[in-house]
Amino acid sequence: MAVYFDHNATTPLHEKALEAMQPYMEAIYGNPSSLHRFGRLQRDAIEQAREQVAALMGAQSSQVVFTSGGTEANNLMLKGLCIDAGVQRIAVSEIEHMSLLQPAATLADSGCAVDRIAVNEQGLVTQASLKQVIKDDTALVSVMAANNETGALQDIKKLAAQARANGAWFHTDASQIAGKLAFSFEQTGVHAMTLSAHKLYGPLGAGALIVDKQLPMHSLTQGGSQEKGLRAGTENVPAIVGFGMAAELAMQAMDERADHVRTLRDALEKLLQQFDQVKVFANEAGRLPNTLQMGVQDFDGETLLMELDRRGFAVSSGSACTSGKTEPSHVLKAMAIPDELATSAVRISFGRANTMEEVERFVEALEQILGLKSSAVMMAANL
Amino acid sequence: MAVYFDHNATTPLHEKALEAMQPYMEAIYGNPSSLHRFGRLQRDAIEQAREQVAALMGAQSSQVVFTSGGTEANNLMLKGLCIDAGVQRIAVSEIEHMSLLQPAATLADSGCAVDRIAVNEQGLVTQASLKQVIKDDTALVSVMAANNETGALQDIKKLAAQARANGAWFHTDASQIAGKLAFSFEQTGVHAMTLSAHKLYGPLGAGALIVDKQLPMHSLTQGGSQEKGLRAGTENVPAIVGFGMAAELAMQAMDERADHVRTLRDALEKLLQQFDQVKVFANEAGRLPNTLQMGVQDFDGETLLMELDRRGFAVSSGSACTSGKTEPSHVLKAMAIPDELATSAVRISFGRANTMEEVERFVEALEQILGLKSSAVMMAANL
Repeated sequence: MAVYFDHNATTPLHEKALEAMQPYMEAIYGNPSSLHRFGRLQRDAIEQAREQVAALMGAQSSQVVFTSGGTEANNLMLKGLCIDAGVQRIAVSEIEHMSLLQPAATLADSGCAVDRIAVNEQGLVTQASLKQVIKDDTALVSVMAANNETGALQDIKKLAAQARANGAWFHTDASQIAGKLAFSFEQTGVHAMTLSAHKLYGPLGAGALIVDKQLPMHSLTQGGSQEKGLRAGTENVPAIVGFGMAAELAMQAMDERADHVRTLRDALEKLLQQFDQVKVFANEAGRLPNTLQMGVQDFDGETLLMELDRRGFAVSSGSACTSGKTEPSHVLKAMAIPDELATSAVRISFGRANTMEEVERFVEALEQILGLKSSAVMMAANL
Repeated sequence: MAVYFDHNATTPLHEKALEAMQPYMEAIYGNPSSLHRFGRLQRDAIEQAREQVAALMGAQSSQVVFTSGGTEANNLMLKGLCIDAGVQRIAVSEIEHMSLLQPAATLADSGCAVDRIAVNEQGLVTQASLKQVIKDDTALVSVMAANNETGALQDIKKLAAQARANGAWFHTDASQIAGKLAFSFEQTGVHAMTLSAHKLYGPLGAGALIVDKQLPMHSLTQGGSQEKGLRAGTENVPAIVGFGMAAELAMQAMDERADHVRTLRDALEKLLQQFDQVKVFANEAGRLPNTLQMGVQDFDGETLLMELDRRGFAVSSGSACTSGKTEPSHVLKAMAIPDELATSAVRISFGRANTMEEVERFVEALEQILGLKSSAVMMAANL
């Protein structure tokens, strides 16, 4: 039985979220745009989910725009705001997800200035680094709430206030923090926020952009007036219903879940101290309780991932393999981690079903791979 | 128990498609982009579905690009081909779905010439009407295979050949024909084809653009290299798996399903002859076997829909209600149906679970609403 330590990539669907979806894949069908009773039931289901998602994130339900996922929400944010709206300049942090950075590059190609906000060696955007790039004509600032690789948490409330003070809108990609730690649209003072259902035990196929109605947004798709004209296409009702239920469950169990994964993560981090060649990234920053990214000196991250996979542990390599050549991740590069360490990065991200026994077995497997079999483990194995 | 006669809007998910999806919402999870075993299982599932969809449509699996639905596929077709590719002129039929016409309007706004191909009073694009608009610089022609309102079938093979002879690419929106009648990418000679899973007893949240690899397509979303770079974002694996199974089931049961709904449709059409004020649209055209669109003289379509809904029958009004004012559908307008008849349009679209008894009860309900209670029904009711 393989052990799944890759919850920042995707989470298993919560059994109660599936239970909520099930009727909408069986008895309750219909197109939400239809005027008859079948359509009305679908619309009601969407509106209930909208309230559940809004409640988790401290937003108004009327601010929630459902999308097919986080990538679409990030694309909608940048291109749906900046194309046609006369936006001349935006600022994005160096460590954003590619679904934010690549649309930003598309905007840059079409003439919008895109400034990059630097991070420090802990992966944090400081007020000083934002100050360095923000200009009078900066229309939008985007900084993710928690990084998907390192788990580093930004001080979004302060950064949003700073952007506002400079007359800019502020967007945060909250895909990784949502459901893991308390995080509020209203209290942080952001104008827009990206969410992904499958990162918080919801289904694939649903996400959201929560967005202040004063922003002059345009839809990226045309042909239907769904989601107040911001997302054309028949709504994925079962996925939206599952997203809503997953949000409600996350709100109820947030502290308990956070405590559980933090215990595992902290135990792992302690056990890793025995390995001189292991370095934990962003370990002095506030981090997501479930996330640990490490570099292993003189080891290739993908080789390590594969060796762990062979032994039944699913983790992620921080680096992206491009045509056979291992490139260090842009996140670690931005943190000025040396390439030789960055290319060795592996991310462990825990979830609700993981156990301490799995953590211990993982450390044993790591010891084997690193050829380090500590005497304690050798003795235990030989007894 | 309400009767569902609105299968062209959406179909209930086939129980066997749901069965195929179920493991991917329970035990088998993971991100298809992940390198470990969890990811590999997801990729395998997507590739199997790709083969199933390709098999139904007579295409190569490598030509199938999964999207979140038909609307996204139509948007991808027009904007993903025409923006950046130096396309100067396209031609689209007057009766396309809004998810094709509105992106075309967006292209027109950005300077691409968009010619409209007229239809005759049966809703058919003739070779003469295509010839009238096609020009030397027409890069793309798009004509839907079957109309969602009237069910009228176009001679796609001839039209595609005509476009090819003029050096143009040919796209067809096959969302309505797929699974209902045999229709082949290869045999019709099209370059691209739009599909929607939830129109053929598959799930919401999945669709496809089947596209010839010679077309210089661009993705509408950035941030991931999924679907050969044509659709960024984590794949909706359960929905894709369900789409694949729905395609396989449709291929197996196509004739049987078509015969069943044709029997119901033909019976309804015959029963409607008793009503002088009822006119069936496109009734001299080859049509989808499940579809009947009618106008009822001196009746408002939405009122009729609501009256039928009250009596437990779910149908669609052909017209789109815009801010309280009933506008005739663009399809019926293009067929030169007078506005007073077009605004009375109602569409009945049958599916696998409908019965002859439901058809008979529907006609009784219609009689009541029209205040027409024929003597035969009166007698039957009084006995």
